[in-house]
Amino acid sequence: MFTIGVDLGGTNIAVGIVNEKYEIVKKASCPTQAERDPVFIVDDIAKLIIGLCQEAGIEQKEIASVGIAAPGSVDPVSGVVKYANNLPFRDFPICSLLKERIECQNIHLENDANAAAWGEAVAGAAKGTAHSVMITLGTGVGGGVVIDHKLYSGFNYAGAELGHMVICEGGRQCTCGRKGCFEAYASATALIQMTKEKMAACEKEGRATLLTKVAAEQGRVSGRTAFMAAKAGDPAAEEVISEYCGYLACGLTNLINIFQPEVLSIGGGISNEGDSLVNRLMDKIVAERYGGSTVKPTEIRIAKLKNDAGIIGGALLK
Amino acid sequence: MFTIGVDLGGTNIAVGIVNEKYEIVKKASCPTQAERDPVFIVDDIAKLIIGLCQEAGIEQKEIASVGIAAPGSVDPVSGVVKYANNLPFRDFPICSLLKERIECQNIHLENDANAAAWGEAVAGAAKGTAHSVMITLGTGVGGGVVIDHKLYSGFNYAGAELGHMVICEGGRQCTCGRKGCFEAYASATALIQMTKEKMAACEKEGRATLLTKVAAEQGRVSGRTAFMAAKAGDPAAEEVISEYCGYLACGLTNLINIFQPEVLSIGGGISNEGDSLVNRLMDKIVAERYGGSTVKPTEIRIAKLKNDAGIIGGALLK
Repeated sequence: MFTIGVDLGGTNIAVGIVNEKYEIVKKASCPTQAERDPVFIVDDIAKLIIGLCQEAGIEQKEIASVGIAAPGSVDPVSGVVKYANNLPFRDFPICSLLKERIECQNIHLENDANAAAWGEAVAGAAKGTAHSVMITLGTGVGGGVVIDHKLYSGFNYAGAELGHMVICEGGRQCTCGRKGCFEAYASATALIQMTKEKMAACEKEGRATLLTKVAAEQGRVSGRTAFMAAKAGDPAAEEVISEYCGYLACGLTNLINIFQPEVLSIGGGISNEGDSLVNRLMDKIVAERYGGSTVKPTEIRIAKLKNDAGIIGGALLK
Repeated sequence: MFTIGVDLGGTNIAVGIVNEKYEIVKKASCPTQAERDPVFIVDDIAKLIIGLCQEAGIEQKEIASVGIAAPGSVDPVSGVVKYANNLPFRDFPICSLLKERIECQNIHLENDANAAAWGEAVAGAAKGTAHSVMITLGTGVGGGVVIDHKLYSGFNYAGAELGHMVICEGGRQCTCGRKGCFEAYASATALIQMTKEKMAACEKEGRATLLTKVAAEQGRVSGRTAFMAAKAGDPAAEEVISEYCGYLACGLTNLINIFQPEVLSIGGGISNEGDSLVNRLMDKIVAERYGGSTVKPTEIRIAKLKNDAGIIGGALLK
């Protein structure tokens, strides 16, 4: 049997057929065109699914389930996207509309960060564990929590918003309205802001920094700028990374003290820094986690599924 | 059938027989005398249990289970207290030692904050819910998490340390070694410190405040001092309470965004302020919780079991 995962993003809809080894056997995508009537988005999801099955020579009846990973606030039980920031969904019954368009009637829906955490728990960095937490460091900070082999998102499915835990009361403004959220310090957006602030400070002080050169080569300041300049030995960049990693380690230590998961995995663009990122975080985490050396420690790992997390996580939804 | 709960504290050992309606039918206590060999503490727990059964006219074989709520780090599976701050326990096999002294061989062990959260979930403020969180505002800030009708404390049983979530990175020193923990701002100890700081500032500025009068009447500054003076209309006390409640609401909102429990209950000494405390917190929580008015909100309630939380929570352990 096969399952299908749908990664519904603000820019692209990506669909993949996944086999029993959790591998994507075939995938395809199309632009979301988020501004249109959302019914057309469902039409395109159905077309991608039907087309993929034909191309792969798989009959639709061989598809055991379809799982949609969608941004925003979703109700997995009713299959309704209640609200999404980047998509025109308001109480949109995406699952029932998709059922009208494909043969498979076993359709699941989850928030995209939750689906990614589920994918990592079943087939990625936290495979084999009962309790794991994943955070995604991208435009924002997404979170997903797996407890006792099940996704946990609260009694109203709105929980696991791990990015919206304040770590600096009264600090940097977050998009959610609070001040000092983990997301306002640990997202790629926050790192870009810190990098720009450091570049401005250096310019003001007449201090030379590779940050300017790296940003010019990239054509913009990105989440990689400071990491690249720091690797080249730039002290100002090192200060940015050190500040950023201090906040990141603070939030991760909070999550360890709260959940003590077997594995805490880090995904999203910033996670491309790999184990060198994890190494930068460990000193502070080891010094600050509760229980110290008396308890078996949570392992911090880089997420494995990368850009396929939404498809694989979606395909594995139950 | 009956069950027995043991609330093992740094000062007293309290034991109670609990009936099927979750009521304490008889209880007794003795001093812990924490400095002695811990085997004598187990002797006293056994004596209290045997004595209570005799007094209540209940045969020991009518006791279905005994549950011990102990401070510190415990392993509920092996029945071992690994470490406790206020008691001389280091990898102490309390359950097996108690089994040698009483007839009942079904003995459970839990951390005291977890046991209290379990008591509230089954028989208290969160009765009837599947997912609930409890925090205890006392000397420290304790936490307990119930997910899907089960206590959750991580893969190593060291989790749910909700007081050791940093809300002010680099802020007030916490006893755990971190700076800026929720506990360092929301415990009774923190409130006492804030009250003393305000009294010192008022004295320095020559500003009159009822805080001094209330503290003199109490014979000391307590967690109630600022609440009492604020109720009498003292502006300086109102400033203390407003600051304290701001931090408390910040941490509670974090816990809502993370867990979205059906009920978040508040126990411990500070919770004696009752619904007026909850009312002071709600404006900030309602403004800051994720999902706003689009999701069913977590209810904030004062815990119900009060000083019996350890006994009832222990007696209900499974």
